[in-house]
Amino acid sequence: MTPAYFDHNATTPVDDAVLEAILPYFKEAFGNASSRHAHGIIARRAIDKAREQVATAVGVQPAQVIFTSGGSEANNLFIRGTADNLKPANICISAIEHPCVLRPTQELARRTSERWVMQKLGVDNLGKVDVVAANDVMKQHKPDLVSVMLANNETGVIQDVATIAEIARSHKAWMHTDAVQGLGKIPLDFSALKVHAMTLSGHKIYGPKGAAALIVDKRLLLKPLIYGGGHENGMRSGTENVPAIVGFGVACELAKSRTEATAKHVSQLRDHLEAGLQAMDATIFGLGATRIPNTCYFALPDIEGDTLVVRLDKAGFAVASGAACSSVKPGQSHVLEAMGVNPMLARCAVRVSLGDSNTLSQVESFLEQTKRIVTELKGMNSVTM
Amino acid sequence: MTPAYFDHNATTPVDDAVLEAILPYFKEAFGNASSRHAHGIIARRAIDKAREQVATAVGVQPAQVIFTSGGSEANNLFIRGTADNLKPANICISAIEHPCVLRPTQELARRTSERWVMQKLGVDNLGKVDVVAANDVMKQHKPDLVSVMLANNETGVIQDVATIAEIARSHKAWMHTDAVQGLGKIPLDFSALKVHAMTLSGHKIYGPKGAAALIVDKRLLLKPLIYGGGHENGMRSGTENVPAIVGFGVACELAKSRTEATAKHVSQLRDHLEAGLQAMDATIFGLGATRIPNTCYFALPDIEGDTLVVRLDKAGFAVASGAACSSVKPGQSHVLEAMGVNPMLARCAVRVSLGDSNTLSQVESFLEQTKRIVTELKGMNSVTM
Repeated sequence: MTPAYFDHNATTPVDDAVLEAILPYFKEAFGNASSRHAHGIIARRAIDKAREQVATAVGVQPAQVIFTSGGSEANNLFIRGTADNLKPANICISAIEHPCVLRPTQELARRTSERWVMQKLGVDNLGKVDVVAANDVMKQHKPDLVSVMLANNETGVIQDVATIAEIARSHKAWMHTDAVQGLGKIPLDFSALKVHAMTLSGHKIYGPKGAAALIVDKRLLLKPLIYGGGHENGMRSGTENVPAIVGFGVACELAKSRTEATAKHVSQLRDHLEAGLQAMDATIFGLGATRIPNTCYFALPDIEGDTLVVRLDKAGFAVASGAACSSVKPGQSHVLEAMGVNPMLARCAVRVSLGDSNTLSQVESFLEQTKRIVTELKGMNSVTM
Repeated sequence: MTPAYFDHNATTPVDDAVLEAILPYFKEAFGNASSRHAHGIIARRAIDKAREQVATAVGVQPAQVIFTSGGSEANNLFIRGTADNLKPANICISAIEHPCVLRPTQELARRTSERWVMQKLGVDNLGKVDVVAANDVMKQHKPDLVSVMLANNETGVIQDVATIAEIARSHKAWMHTDAVQGLGKIPLDFSALKVHAMTLSGHKIYGPKGAAALIVDKRLLLKPLIYGGGHENGMRSGTENVPAIVGFGVACELAKSRTEATAKHVSQLRDHLEAGLQAMDATIFGLGATRIPNTCYFALPDIEGDTLVVRLDKAGFAVASGAACSSVKPGQSHVLEAMGVNPMLARCAVRVSLGDSNTLSQVESFLEQTKRIVTELKGMNSVTM
């Protein structure tokens, strides 16, 4: 048995090079970047460098990077920060957004005053936003804000953000994409996606938790979520988390340089994994759609996802059941619901998300263990039934 | 010459024991605390332990701790989060609050709809909130929200939060204190201060940047700033920054155990420092008021603060000039303004904030260097004049 971490869409271990880069900033170079003395200047320069690294990773200028504490904060900053600068109007988001886009949008639509109207852009049965339908919705409702994620965290399905952005722009809407699951997995370019804002996160790409960014078009008018000392050009106050930002910068540099090699490696593993799962009668969600190369979201008939996750954990494999990082609807994936997946099958959903360090032997071991567990569970069912 | 870091109110180096505690959470125990597998469970337990440590440090239950990414976020969470659950009314804050309390309050008062009315509670010439005047203001304006910091970051002056809280409560207001500069410097007890909410921060007490908390009375109704997966009991969504939270927990434990010894040590150093500065005709702001024991805020006549900070930095001493971590009014301290300090003298303000590792020899060296720099600067002035 070769135990393995197969949950890289949830979080990743910090890369050795990243850890080495951040360590000096805890004790030796611990200054507050707002201080005017040498300690502060060293911290400020470290942040400047990281800002360049992040900007380079997605082809923007450093001044377009607003550092935040995480992807959730960055998504909330776009949704609420942009909305608070506009008269309440229509906001369109895809039906499969992460809760940190969905929920702030719902909150805008729930206000007692200055209430927004939310429309959801539906997906097809592969989990891809239906661009024709999206066009109709936007034509009818003329949104001021649109947010569609680049790659879904559960299915891995890549959305046609550039086309949706063009439609959004034709209605003079501000367009945002949550690209947290895209960075490091597929080539990423801010301009090519035609968005006004994009969310990136460090801990999904072998960087530390605690640093992320909202990348913005300079014309975007934004109000901060956090007011105070005026950090991040007034858009995000608070003492900068220097080590996390430094690590995020290095992780972006590594992600950019490794995207191609990683994609090749993990897609081979995934093909092998999915062939094995299909031989066990698994349904692979999003199969046939263009997906990020590391993600396999599957269901084995009559094997509850939560149960399989726990059993696999005991066998040394870390995987996620449907919508693991959400408590919106415990036990139910809003993504699979939007795809029209039968609720009985949706309960069986399990996500494997591969990473650089995973091996073919781990995948083979995973398939063996899954087969064993399934046999055991089916045996138990037949005994108890 | 013995160079020294004298800017502990801005930030502190991470303690060795804290660094040791957080290191495993970057690579080995890197899990997402929301994951249901072993990696996630280890991360969740680490957060639970840190929550207990933070709670214990201020005498509350773990469930009263809401982790945030920093003190600025925690202060914004109280101001905006509580206001958004109330009908717009009056909010009172002291005239010497940190910008991360002042600015979100100004923003409430600037809204196009649901606008709040802000009143400032003035301070006397020592920088202490005038309780009699505060009583009059609250009697007249009947606030729903009140925020008064425990210890001012510039002067170190400790406020009579408990008495102000009693007045606030008599008007049925929700009372908050920013206790970021109090923790680890003076004994701290949530109940004794009679507040409904209190802000703490890790990086001011030898913990890492990126973790802080809003401590809340369970009856306080709050709306989150960051919506999403429902972390922190729904009050602060986003993948938890496990290493930073772990470090914050350990730092709280250390701060509590060391408060008395640290206070004794740094107050001796400060007495020596202030005697030396007074011999150089310095004004010590807040002298005579009860202050946190590590802070000395002084002005040497005709020596501009910014200039002295730069010169001292070259000599190896890290100190801050007035309002270093704010860009509200560059070059001018709103704290000294509120105290009625002559603007010419306020321009000369320099803050020394001492810490555990500072020594008497560093203080003596600092006094020598300051004397030398002052002599040089006065010489230059007389030449150019």
